[in-house]
Amino acid sequence: MRILVLGGDGYCGWATSLYLSSRGHQVAIADSFHRRLWDHELGAQSLTPIRALPERLRVWHAVSGQTIEPFVGDITDYEFVASSFQAFEPETVIHFAEQRAAPYSMIDRQHAVFTQVNNVVGTLNVLFAIKEFSPNCHLVKLGTMGEYGTPNIDIEEGYIRIQHNGREDLLPFPKQPGSFYHLSKVHDSHNIMFCCKIWGIRATDLNQGVVYGTVTAEVSLDEALINRFDYDEVFGTALNRFCVQAAIGHPLTVYGSGGQTRGFLDIRDTVRCIELACINPPERGECRVFNQFTEQFSVLELAELVQSAAHKMGIDAPIDHLPDPRVEAEEHYYNARHTKLLDLGLRPHLLSESLLDSLVNIAFQYRDRIDASLLLPKVDWRNSRNDRRQRPAAMAAAAD
Amino acid sequence: MRILVLGGDGYCGWATSLYLSSRGHQVAIADSFHRRLWDHELGAQSLTPIRALPERLRVWHAVSGQTIEPFVGDITDYEFVASSFQAFEPETVIHFAEQRAAPYSMIDRQHAVFTQVNNVVGTLNVLFAIKEFSPNCHLVKLGTMGEYGTPNIDIEEGYIRIQHNGREDLLPFPKQPGSFYHLSKVHDSHNIMFCCKIWGIRATDLNQGVVYGTVTAEVSLDEALINRFDYDEVFGTALNRFCVQAAIGHPLTVYGSGGQTRGFLDIRDTVRCIELACINPPERGECRVFNQFTEQFSVLELAELVQSAAHKMGIDAPIDHLPDPRVEAEEHYYNARHTKLLDLGLRPHLLSESLLDSLVNIAFQYRDRIDASLLLPKVDWRNSRNDRRQRPAAMAAAAD
Repeated sequence: MRILVLGGDGYCGWATSLYLSSRGHQVAIADSFHRRLWDHELGAQSLTPIRALPERLRVWHAVSGQTIEPFVGDITDYEFVASSFQAFEPETVIHFAEQRAAPYSMIDRQHAVFTQVNNVVGTLNVLFAIKEFSPNCHLVKLGTMGEYGTPNIDIEEGYIRIQHNGREDLLPFPKQPGSFYHLSKVHDSHNIMFCCKIWGIRATDLNQGVVYGTVTAEVSLDEALINRFDYDEVFGTALNRFCVQAAIGHPLTVYGSGGQTRGFLDIRDTVRCIELACINPPERGECRVFNQFTEQFSVLELAELVQSAAHKMGIDAPIDHLPDPRVEAEEHYYNARHTKLLDLGLRPHLLSESLLDSLVNIAFQYRDRIDASLLLPKVDWRNSRNDRRQRPAAMAAAAD
Repeated sequence: MRILVLGGDGYCGWATSLYLSSRGHQVAIADSFHRRLWDHELGAQSLTPIRALPERLRVWHAVSGQTIEPFVGDITDYEFVASSFQAFEPETVIHFAEQRAAPYSMIDRQHAVFTQVNNVVGTLNVLFAIKEFSPNCHLVKLGTMGEYGTPNIDIEEGYIRIQHNGREDLLPFPKQPGSFYHLSKVHDSHNIMFCCKIWGIRATDLNQGVVYGTVTAEVSLDEALINRFDYDEVFGTALNRFCVQAAIGHPLTVYGSGGQTRGFLDIRDTVRCIELACINPPERGECRVFNQFTEQFSVLELAELVQSAAHKMGIDAPIDHLPDPRVEAEEHYYNARHTKLLDLGLRPHLLSESLLDSLVNIAFQYRDRIDASLLLPKVDWRNSRNDRRQRPAAMAAAAD
């Protein structure tokens, strides 16, 4: 299958591109390298050292014999999207090419506007390109479980059957996103659903949970293929932060009580879920939604799992509770359905089995590269600044 | 009350500004004149001749003794929003300043992207300005009944109590918007709800039905104060189109079977609804939603009402059914709640009473200005063009 991976140089995109290439698909990567740019802006970097894309692709060809073609450009530029579609003629487009960090979108007004415009316009361009050049092409779009928020009812996969005043309908599940980034994904979801309806586009919207892990079979083949491990407060997730904190003997910093519960999955399951979506496409006109995660944990449970894993390595990792910089329920009901990918054949990796190998050990291996100043929260939901930032976050924080 | 009307030079904005000014509020208008620009782009114009804003404001001062201060600029420019807030210090901001035509958003990719970026960024800027300069200011935002689409259950006012698997929650009503424009309003609604939650902003989201009528007590005071009457296929509504068609002896063109049912209201009720929202503000942090319409009609019912009114004037107005250029259900259930504004004291004007005075007679009075080529649908939901338009719609249509 000819698969175009938008954002294929990023964390999920890179692992997915190599996995699909190893499975015999013909893969191309489109990327603008904005993810690398944001590292420079924030004064942060991946814990693991990431090679430039040409080197990554050269090494991948050497170790696998497979060729992945790169398209360099920004999908908010329609001419770029159009020329990539015309050159590669994809049967499936996997769309990872968005600004994906909630804290980044909450830095200030400019970052909020950038995130929404970047994500919404990029996705609109992809939808128009499919309509114009490849109407049969399947769009596999990365959404997020964060689109749903934390309602007091069970979360379904995209749609919910509602009975009301003696009538009923199957309607889009109500969304309560918790950042300008999560809002951008909700905007995308509505736009995609509409384009499927009016143009007969086929789409799978994958509402993904929090992805953890660095290791997949493919990226392990050579050090030049290693994947990102983000631990800074903006792009890192709580689980990565805890592993890095344990590795340098820093207390694990839980925001608030730690009762915030979310869905999680191993990156080895991400790549498999994506392939399952690709090889089982929906009908023309269908906008299918899968909840892509395998286990639910609270933040405090994650901290305790890391604490326990660290303990086995002889490390003491106390847990600190910080004021929550986000506006979110610290204790809430959470039960989200996630059976559709299991029905297609997903066999989950569980966190308990991969925690040491793929997380704590990586953090230890690269602990000399850890910058502890990147760990603490500086972006505050209640005080998103407007246009006042003149300096990168790291510098501003240092001066505050 | 100090009220800043964003988009105060437009159809609803102008009538609202004069009404609020006549009621003793201190009113300022911010406008970019994009609405006037789009007329030039489309080769269209209001049936009624509209004066320039400075003349309108001069005449209003002469007839009423009231002063309305103009701020000229675009709310997608944050510096403009910020300086207007600092200069006027509004207690209430009424936000009409969006691209509001579904067909305009469906012309091609550029118009879709423009509509969503323009509307979403403008609203984000207003939200950030309230947070930065006037955290107590009440945002009165114009949404649309079209955000809901046509679900097979009763439409509630913004939120619906859902029982599911033995639990329940009050959640945002699921949205199924039918154009890139309607989608932009859904994006806005989610953004506003979020900002109310995290920053304690107070907002009223008015999901307005289709507004009809030209005459209000204020705009009738002088010909220089006359309001817009749009009848072109892009910015005109079906009801205005029917009145204009009757006035020139053209058959009334119904899209499809005409069973498409929507909520409608007289512009005299629009201005009153807005004032009711302003003088009864919600609490800090509350995002309140009112459905702002007074009666439901199907498109065919509207055509028959115009036919009957024309008959009284001795005019024969046959009804033609055209293929529907939109993707929408032509027959569907529709029952939308609209009690909250009635509870605040709204006394509706009914279409049956105002049809002749405010619509058919106006169409007759200005029938020499009618350009019949603007009446027929050229924008097709199924064939939104991409980047290929080089010519204004009217010129392109003439050449097609």
